[in-house]
Amino acid sequence: MANHLQFPERNSAYVATFDKGDLALPPAKKYIVVSCMDARVEPAGQLGIELGDAHVIRNAGGSAKEALRSIIISQRLLGTREIAVFHHTGCGMLLFSTDQLRQVVKDAEPDNHAVSEHVDKIEFLEFGHLEQSVKDDVKFLQDNPLVLKGTTISGWIYDVTTGKVSSP
Amino acid sequence: MANHLQFPERNSAYVATFDKGDLALPPAKKYIVVSCMDARVEPAGQLGIELGDAHVIRNAGGSAKEALRSIIISQRLLGTREIAVFHHTGCGMLLFSTDQLRQVVKDAEPDNHAVSEHVDKIEFLEFGHLEQSVKDDVKFLQDNPLVLKGTTISGWIYDVTTGKVSSP
Repeated sequence: MANHLQFPERNSAYVATFDKGDLALPPAKKYIVVSCMDARVEPAGQLGIELGDAHVIRNAGGSAKEALRSIIISQRLLGTREIAVFHHTGCGMLLFSTDQLRQVVKDAEPDNHAVSEHVDKIEFLEFGHLEQSVKDDVKFLQDNPLVLKGTTISGWIYDVTTGKVSSP
Repeated sequence: MANHLQFPERNSAYVATFDKGDLALPPAKKYIVVSCMDARVEPAGQLGIELGDAHVIRNAGGSAKEALRSIIISQRLLGTREIAVFHHTGCGMLLFSTDQLRQVVKDAEPDNHAVSEHVDKIEFLEFGHLEQSVKDDVKFLQDNPLVLKGTTISGWIYDVTTGKVSSP
Protein backbone atom coordinates (compact mmCIF):
# COMPACT_ATOMS: atom_id res chain seq x y z
CA MET A 1 0.00 0.00 0.00
CA ALA A 2 0.95 3.65 -0.36
CA ASN A 3 3.86 4.79 1.74
CA HIS A 4 3.55 8.45 0.88
CA LEU A 5 2.82 9.29 4.50
CA GLN A 6 6.01 7.56 5.68
CA PHE A 7 4.34 6.26 8.80
CA PRO A 8 6.86 3.45 9.44
CA GLU A 9 9.71 5.97 9.30
CA ARG A 10 7.88 8.46 11.51
CA ASN A 11 6.89 5.62 13.88
CA SER A 12 10.47 4.42 14.45
CA ALA A 13 11.27 6.92 17.21
CA TYR A 14 8.08 5.86 19.04
CA VAL A 15 9.02 2.18 18.80
CA ALA A 16 12.54 2.87 20.07
CA THR A 17 11.28 4.08 23.46
CA PHE A 18 8.03 2.07 23.64
CA ASP A 19 7.55 0.26 26.97
CA LYS A 20 3.75 -0.05 27.23
CA GLY A 21 3.29 -3.41 25.49
CA ASP A 22 1.48 -4.95 28.46
CA LEU A 23 -1.48 -2.56 28.71
CA ALA A 24 -4.90 -4.23 29.03
CA LEU A 25 -7.72 -3.76 26.51
CA PRO A 26 -10.18 -2.06 28.95
CA PRO A 27 -9.30 1.58 29.68
CA ALA A 28 -7.57 1.76 33.08
CA LYS A 29 -9.33 4.98 34.13
CA LYS A 30 -12.75 3.85 32.82
CA TYR A 31 -13.68 7.00 30.93
CA ILE A 32 -14.47 8.10 27.40
CA VAL A 33 -13.60 11.38 25.69
CA VAL A 34 -15.80 12.44 22.75
CA SER A 35 -13.93 15.04 20.74
CA CYS A 36 -13.53 16.67 17.32
CA MET A 37 -11.34 15.49 14.43
CA ASP A 38 -9.89 19.04 14.19
CA ALA A 39 -6.16 19.07 13.45
CA ARG A 40 -5.53 21.47 16.34
CA VAL A 41 -7.13 19.12 18.88
CA GLU A 42 -4.99 16.45 20.51
CA PRO A 43 -6.88 15.02 23.49
CA ALA A 44 -4.01 13.00 24.99
CA GLY A 45 -1.71 15.98 25.42
CA GLN A 46 -4.37 18.60 26.09
CA LEU A 47 -6.22 16.57 28.73
CA GLY A 48 -3.26 14.67 30.16
CA ILE A 49 -4.51 11.23 29.11
CA GLU A 50 -1.90 8.51 29.60
CA LEU A 51 -1.71 5.65 27.11
CA GLY A 52 -4.17 2.96 28.21
CA ASP A 53 -6.31 5.29 30.35
CA ALA A 54 -9.35 6.20 28.22
CA HIS A 55 -11.31 5.57 25.05
CA VAL A 56 -11.03 8.53 22.70
CA ILE A 57 -13.75 9.01 20.08
CA ARG A 58 -13.25 11.73 17.47
CA ASN A 59 -15.44 12.88 14.59
CA ALA A 60 -16.38 16.13 12.89
CA GLY A 61 -17.67 18.31 15.72
CA GLY A 62 -17.25 15.72 18.47
CA SER A 63 -20.81 14.52 17.96
CA ALA A 64 -22.12 12.43 20.87
CA LYS A 65 -24.92 11.21 18.62
CA GLU A 66 -22.52 9.66 16.13
CA ALA A 67 -20.41 8.37 19.04
CA LEU A 68 -23.29 6.35 20.51
CA ARG A 69 -22.32 3.06 18.83
CA SER A 70 -18.79 3.34 20.21
CA ILE A 71 -20.03 4.42 23.65
CA ILE A 72 -22.27 1.35 23.96
CA ILE A 73 -19.34 -0.94 23.08
CA SER A 74 -17.10 0.93 25.52
CA GLN A 75 -19.56 0.81 28.41
CA ARG A 76 -21.10 -2.61 27.98
CA LEU A 77 -18.02 -4.61 26.97
CA LEU A 78 -15.09 -2.64 28.40
CA GLY A 79 -16.43 -1.16 31.63
CA THR A 80 -16.23 2.62 31.15
CA ARG A 81 -18.42 4.66 33.51
CA GLU A 82 -17.71 8.29 32.69
CA ILE A 83 -18.01 10.38 29.51
CA ALA A 84 -16.43 13.77 28.73
CA VAL A 85 -17.72 15.80 25.77
CA PHE A 86 -14.76 17.88 24.56
CA HIS A 87 -15.48 20.53 21.91
CA HIS A 88 -13.28 23.47 20.88
CA THR A 89 -13.24 27.10 19.76
CA GLY A 90 -13.00 27.87 16.05
CA CYS A 91 -14.79 24.65 15.13
CA GLY A 92 -15.56 24.17 11.45
CA MET A 93 -19.02 22.86 12.38
CA LEU A 94 -20.05 26.47 13.15
CA LEU A 95 -19.36 27.57 9.57
CA PHE A 96 -21.77 25.71 7.29
CA SER A 97 -25.17 24.04 7.07
CA THR A 98 -26.07 20.54 5.87
CA ASP A 99 -27.96 22.06 2.94
CA GLN A 100 -24.92 24.12 1.91
CA LEU A 101 -22.53 21.17 2.08
CA ARG A 102 -24.92 18.93 0.15
CA GLN A 103 -24.96 21.61 -2.57
CA VAL A 104 -21.13 21.82 -2.62
CA VAL A 105 -20.97 18.06 -3.18
CA LYS A 106 -23.66 18.10 -5.88
CA ASP A 107 -22.14 21.09 -7.70
CA ALA A 108 -18.82 19.24 -8.00
CA GLU A 109 -20.51 16.49 -10.05
CA PRO A 110 -23.83 17.86 -11.30
CA ASP A 111 -24.67 14.90 -13.50
CA ASN A 112 -23.80 12.18 -10.99
CA HIS A 113 -27.09 10.93 -9.57
CA ALA A 114 -25.39 8.45 -7.22
CA VAL A 115 -23.64 11.38 -5.53
CA SER A 116 -26.87 13.39 -5.15
CA GLU A 117 -28.76 10.42 -3.79
CA HIS A 118 -26.05 9.46 -1.28
CA VAL A 119 -25.35 12.94 0.03
CA ASP A 120 -29.02 13.76 0.57
CA LYS A 121 -29.15 10.93 3.11
CA ILE A 122 -26.36 12.38 5.25
CA GLU A 123 -27.02 14.72 8.15
CA PHE A 124 -23.77 16.59 8.75
CA LEU A 125 -24.57 17.43 12.41
CA GLU A 126 -23.32 21.01 12.27
CA PHE A 127 -24.15 23.41 15.12
CA GLY A 128 -24.70 27.13 15.50
CA HIS A 129 -23.30 27.82 18.97
CA LEU A 130 -20.26 26.25 20.63
CA GLU A 131 -21.28 26.28 24.31
CA GLN A 132 -24.78 25.11 23.40
CA SER A 133 -23.34 22.24 21.33
CA VAL A 134 -21.56 20.94 24.44
CA LYS A 135 -24.69 21.26 26.58
CA ASP A 136 -26.81 19.61 23.90
CA ASP A 137 -24.44 16.64 23.61
CA VAL A 138 -24.26 16.23 27.40
CA LYS A 139 -28.06 16.25 27.54
CA PHE A 140 -28.31 13.82 24.60
CA LEU A 141 -26.17 11.34 26.54
CA GLN A 142 -27.95 11.95 29.85
CA ASP A 143 -31.32 11.26 28.22
CA ASN A 144 -30.30 8.34 26.02
CA PRO A 145 -31.64 4.98 27.27
CA LEU A 146 -28.60 3.15 25.87
CA VAL A 147 -26.10 5.07 28.03
CA LEU A 148 -25.71 3.25 31.35
CA LYS A 149 -27.61 4.77 34.26
CA GLY A 150 -25.28 6.44 36.73
CA THR A 151 -22.73 7.45 34.09
CA THR A 152 -21.00 10.73 34.99
CA ILE A 153 -21.23 13.02 31.96
CA SER A 154 -19.39 16.33 31.71
CA GLY A 155 -18.75 18.96 29.03
CA TRP A 156 -15.54 20.83 28.21
CA ILE A 157 -14.24 23.40 25.75
CA TYR A 158 -10.70 23.65 24.41
CA ASP A 159 -9.42 27.05 23.26
CA VAL A 160 -7.27 26.51 20.15
CA THR A 161 -5.61 29.92 20.60
CA THR A 162 -4.48 29.43 24.22
CA GLY A 163 -4.36 25.64 24.65
CA LYS A 164 -6.65 26.00 27.66
CA VAL A 165 -9.48 23.66 28.75
CA SER A 166 -12.54 25.01 30.59
CA SER A 167 -16.16 24.21 31.42
CA PRO A 168 -18.80 25.99 29.32
CA MET B 1 -20.16 20.63 35.43
CA ALA B 2 -18.37 17.66 36.95
CA ASN B 3 -14.70 18.16 37.65
CA HIS B 4 -14.00 14.59 38.66
CA LEU B 5 -11.65 14.19 35.71
CA GLN B 6 -9.59 17.21 36.77
CA PHE B 7 -9.03 18.26 33.18
CA PRO B 8 -8.17 21.92 33.97
CA GLU B 9 -5.50 20.76 36.44
CA ARG B 10 -4.11 18.18 34.04
CA ASN B 11 -4.24 20.72 31.20
CA SER B 12 -2.17 23.35 33.03
CA ALA B 13 1.22 21.90 32.03
CA TYR B 14 0.09 21.87 28.39
CA VAL B 15 -0.97 25.52 28.57
CA ALA B 16 2.32 26.53 30.19
CA THR B 17 4.35 25.51 27.12
CA PHE B 18 1.68 26.06 24.43
CA ASP B 19 2.93 28.07 21.44
CA LYS B 20 0.66 26.85 18.60
CA GLY B 21 -2.16 29.39 18.93
CA ASP B 22 -1.86 30.55 15.32
CA LEU B 23 -2.54 27.25 13.54
CA ALA B 24 -5.08 27.43 10.71
CA LEU B 25 -8.33 25.44 10.65
CA PRO B 26 -7.48 23.33 7.53
CA PRO B 27 -4.97 20.52 8.24
CA ALA B 28 -1.53 21.67 7.02
CA LYS B 29 -0.58 18.23 5.63
CA LYS B 30 -4.03 17.65 4.04
CA TYR B 31 -4.59 14.12 5.31
CA ILE B 32 -7.06 12.23 7.46
CA VAL B 33 -6.37 9.32 9.83
CA VAL B 34 -9.28 6.98 10.60
CA SER B 35 -8.46 5.05 13.75
CA CYS B 36 -9.88 3.16 16.72
CA MET B 37 -11.00 4.61 20.06
CA ASP B 38 -8.84 1.96 21.83
CA ALA B 39 -7.06 3.31 24.92
CA ARG B 40 -3.73 1.91 23.68
CA VAL B 41 -3.94 3.80 20.40
CA GLU B 42 -2.58 7.35 20.24
CA PRO B 43 -2.29 8.38 16.59
CA ALA B 44 -0.32 11.62 17.13
CA GLY B 45 2.58 9.94 18.91
CA GLN B 46 2.46 6.63 17.07
CA LEU B 47 2.32 8.16 13.58
CA GLY B 48 4.34 11.30 14.25
CA ILE B 49 1.47 13.70 13.57
CA GLU B 50 2.30 17.28 14.52
CA LEU B 51 -0.44 19.51 15.93
CA GLY B 52 -2.28 21.12 13.00
CA ASP B 53 -1.20 18.52 10.42
CA ALA B 54 -4.13 16.12 10.02
CA HIS B 55 -7.74 15.37 10.83
CA VAL B 56 -7.99 12.41 13.20
CA ILE B 57 -11.23 10.44 13.30
CA ARG B 58 -11.61 7.75 15.96
CA ASN B 59 -14.44 5.34 16.71
CA ALA B 60 -14.87 1.74 17.84
CA GLY B 61 -12.82 -0.26 15.32
CA GLY B 62 -11.75 2.71 13.21
CA SER B 63 -14.75 2.28 10.94
CA ALA B 64 -14.42 4.12 7.62
CA LYS B 65 -18.15 3.69 7.10
CA GLU B 66 -19.02 5.64 10.24
CA ALA B 67 -16.25 8.15 9.38
CA LEU B 68 -17.82 9.05 6.03
CA ARG B 69 -19.72 12.11 7.33
CA SER B 70 -16.51 13.52 8.80
CA ILE B 71 -14.49 12.63 5.69
CA ILE B 72 -16.88 14.54 3.42
CA ILE B 73 -16.63 17.62 5.65
CA SER B 74 -12.83 17.27 5.76
CA GLN B 75 -12.40 16.89 2.01
CA ARG B 76 -15.03 19.27 0.69
CA LEU B 77 -14.64 22.12 3.17
CA LEU B 78 -11.08 21.78 4.46
CA GLY B 79 -9.10 20.47 1.52
CA THR B 80 -7.77 17.06 2.64
CA ARG B 81 -6.69 14.75 -0.20
CA GLU B 82 -5.34 11.62 1.50
CA ILE B 83 -6.85 9.09 3.92
CA ALA B 84 -5.04 6.56 6.13
CA VAL B 85 -7.03 3.71 7.70
CA PHE B 86 -5.20 2.83 10.94
CA HIS B 87 -6.40 -0.31 12.79
CA HIS B 88 -4.55 -2.24 15.53
CA THR B 89 -3.83 -5.68 16.98
CA GLY B 90 -5.91 -6.90 19.91
CA CYS B 91 -8.92 -4.88 18.80
CA GLY B 92 -12.11 -5.40 20.80
CA MET B 93 -14.10 -5.47 17.55
CA LEU B 94 -12.75 -8.98 16.92
CA LEU B 95 -14.31 -10.30 20.12
CA PHE B 96 -18.09 -10.00 19.78
CA SER B 97 -20.99 -9.89 17.33
CA THR B 98 -23.77 -7.32 16.97
CA ASP B 99 -26.31 -9.97 18.05
CA GLN B 100 -24.32 -10.77 21.18
CA LEU B 101 -23.95 -7.11 22.18
CA ARG B 102 -27.63 -6.40 21.55
CA GLN B 103 -28.41 -9.28 23.91
CA VAL B 104 -26.03 -7.94 26.57
CA VAL B 105 -27.83 -4.59 26.46
CA LYS B 106 -31.29 -6.18 26.56
CA ASP B 107 -30.40 -8.56 29.39
CA ALA B 108 -29.32 -5.61 31.55
CA GLU B 109 -32.86 -4.17 31.39
CA PRO B 110 -35.17 -6.98 30.27
CA ASP B 111 -38.40 -5.03 30.75
CA ASN B 112 -37.27 -1.80 29.09
CA HIS B 113 -38.80 -1.78 25.61
CA ALA B 114 -37.18 1.56 24.67
CA VAL B 115 -33.78 -0.07 25.17
CA SER B 116 -34.66 -3.12 23.04
CA GLU B 117 -36.08 -0.99 20.28
CA HIS B 118 -33.12 1.41 20.17
CA VAL B 119 -30.38 -1.21 20.32
CA ASP B 120 -31.92 -3.35 17.58
CA LYS B 121 -31.42 -0.43 15.20
CA ILE B 122 -27.66 -0.22 15.82
CA GLU B 123 -25.15 -2.12 13.69
CA PHE B 124 -22.01 -2.36 15.82
CA LEU B 125 -19.66 -2.82 12.81
CA GLU B 126 -17.54 -5.57 14.37
CA PHE B 127 -15.14 -7.55 12.20
CA GLY B 128 -13.71 -11.06 12.18
CA HIS B 129 -10.22 -10.52 10.80
CA LEU B 130 -7.87 -7.59 11.41
CA GLU B 131 -5.96 -7.42 8.10
CA GLN B 132 -9.20 -7.92 6.17
CA SER B 133 -10.88 -5.11 8.14
CA VAL B 134 -8.20 -2.70 6.91
CA LYS B 135 -8.51 -3.88 3.31
CA ASP B 136 -12.31 -3.71 3.48
CA ASP B 137 -12.25 -0.14 4.80
CA VAL B 138 -9.74 0.96 2.16
CA LYS B 139 -11.96 -0.57 -0.52
CA PHE B 140 -15.08 1.01 0.97
CA LEU B 141 -13.46 4.44 0.64
CA GLN B 142 -12.04 3.74 -2.84
CA ASP B 143 -15.49 2.72 -4.10
CA ASN B 144 -17.54 5.38 -2.34
CA PRO B 145 -18.86 8.08 -4.70
CA LEU B 146 -18.71 10.70 -1.94
CA VAL B 147 -14.95 10.35 -1.45
CA LEU B 148 -13.17 12.71 -3.86
CA LYS B 149 -11.73 11.07 -6.97
CA GLY B 150 -7.94 10.93 -6.84
CA THR B 151 -7.79 10.61 -3.06
CA THR B 152 -4.79 8.51 -1.96
CA ILE B 153 -6.08 5.85 0.44
CA SER B 154 -3.78 3.57 2.44
CA GLY B 155 -4.17 1.01 5.22
CA TRP B 156 -2.01 0.47 8.32
CA ILE B 157 -1.87 -1.73 11.40
CA TYR B 158 -0.50 -0.76 14.81
CA ASP B 159 0.86 -3.50 17.07
CA VAL B 160 -0.18 -2.70 20.66
CA THR B 161 2.53 -5.00 22.06
CA THR B 162 5.50 -3.49 20.18
CA GLY B 163 4.34 0.04 19.30
CA LYS B 164 5.13 -0.69 15.67
CA VAL B 165 3.19 0.45 12.56
CA SER B 166 3.15 -1.67 9.39
CA SER B 167 1.18 -2.26 6.18
CA PRO B 168 -1.15 -5.29 6.20
